[in-house]
Amino acid sequence: MKITILTLFPSMFEGFLKNSIIARAVANEKIEFECVDFREYATDKFHRVDDTPCGGGAGMVLQCQPIVDCLKDVRMPNSKVVMLTPSGRVFNQKVAREYAKDEHLILLCGHYEGFDHRILNYVDEELSIGDFVLTGGEIAAMVVSDAVIRLQEGVIRTESSNDDSFENDLLEYPQYTRPIVYDGHEVPSVLLSGHHENIRKWRLEKSLETTLEKRPDLLQNRQFTKEELKMLQNIKKNKGIK
Amino acid sequence: MKITILTLFPSMFEGFLKNSIIARAVANEKIEFECVDFREYATDKFHRVDDTPCGGGAGMVLQCQPIVDCLKDVRMPNSKVVMLTPSGRVFNQKVAREYAKDEHLILLCGHYEGFDHRILNYVDEELSIGDFVLTGGEIAAMVVSDAVIRLQEGVIRTESSNDDSFENDLLEYPQYTRPIVYDGHEVPSVLLSGHHENIRKWRLEKSLETTLEKRPDLLQNRQFTKEELKMLQNIKKNKGIK
Repeated sequence: MKITILTLFPSMFEGFLKNSIIARAVANEKIEFECVDFREYATDKFHRVDDTPCGGGAGMVLQCQPIVDCLKDVRMPNSKVVMLTPSGRVFNQKVAREYAKDEHLILLCGHYEGFDHRILNYVDEELSIGDFVLTGGEIAAMVVSDAVIRLQEGVIRTESSNDDSFENDLLEYPQYTRPIVYDGHEVPSVLLSGHHENIRKWRLEKSLETTLEKRPDLLQNRQFTKEELKMLQNIKKNKGIK
Repeated sequence: MKITILTLFPSMFEGFLKNSIIARAVANEKIEFECVDFREYATDKFHRVDDTPCGGGAGMVLQCQPIVDCLKDVRMPNSKVVMLTPSGRVFNQKVAREYAKDEHLILLCGHYEGFDHRILNYVDEELSIGDFVLTGGEIAAMVVSDAVIRLQEGVIRTESSNDDSFENDLLEYPQYTRPIVYDGHEVPSVLLSGHHENIRKWRLEKSLETTLEKRPDLLQNRQFTKEELKMLQNIKKNKGIK
């Protein structure tokens, strides 16, 4: 898979590429990662890429020409072009799984007030990473790249990613490691029992309990197994929830 | 305001600090930003910070001792300690506004399988930036830092941030800049009219229309003005929505 970032600030990705898992994925050729500065495509003699908004208002707006010309240059027949903007579809693990299958993902990062709306004619999708405002699209592009790269085969251990939060619409169960007692706080005894089936059940129950408590919205569209339904009924009964 | 990042990978923040707006905020002493490597607090002679999960399973779990000792060292009476984890409260612009008022924000970044659950006893809040899985908390910490830093007084122009998406539960209206015609696509004529009141109305209507189309959930808990309600009714009527 190849990821191309269109940005005015390629140096912002230097730290991202020092992430041990990402660096290894690039070194092992699981992923090809490149940053392209679309200012280099500006035909304006001062290499300007933005101008004031039509109709007035604060801030600056990114112009069509540099971005569209850059896109024409880097785009291949199999590319997906994603514009990072607060008004896009909201990114989640399902979108990450979807993008992970793409051969070439182009992530377009804005800065300043926003993009000229007409750039949308040259883009496949608008994507938002959440309901908050950032100084630019670069960190959002890191979020998307990171989530997508770790799903590539051979980047992390498969068992690790199958157990992740959100993969099955449940939050993860609590994890513990040595020492057994830390500052008066103990590891739950079932985890020290060596009884695999009891541990599996305890973890599933805790996953359901945590999700019900913190993110009940995740459970709304979920298909439950019989075992899960029974556990969930017990948890609700114990907590006095209908 | 001071932001302290607890991380095993301080070098991942090098690019973030090259973001022009962040770099300027640090240079102008609007913000103090530091990264602390909690591996330096590990009392284990090999500086180990993680161990296998109690009860078995894939991956590694971050141990209590290095993180808790590091927290004790950097924490001040006015600090808020936030652990970045997929099971946390979901970050949004309201949380960003809330954190922006804190004097000292400590962001705790995990890697590997997760944190020993008992670390929660030493933390004020768990926070998630969205329903996706990342290789570590570092990029999430950049998201939070960026959203919070840009809200500090004097970092960006106030008019810019008041107009942002999510600040009033509306997505932004479309922006345009020169040229008036690009590749056959025109700037809407109202924006060239010079009629300020018509431009204001058009923008408000487009904000409502975009939000209704893409993120109707944002409108659910919103208080509307009379003007907005009337516009919304017209938009729904034209689209055949009840």
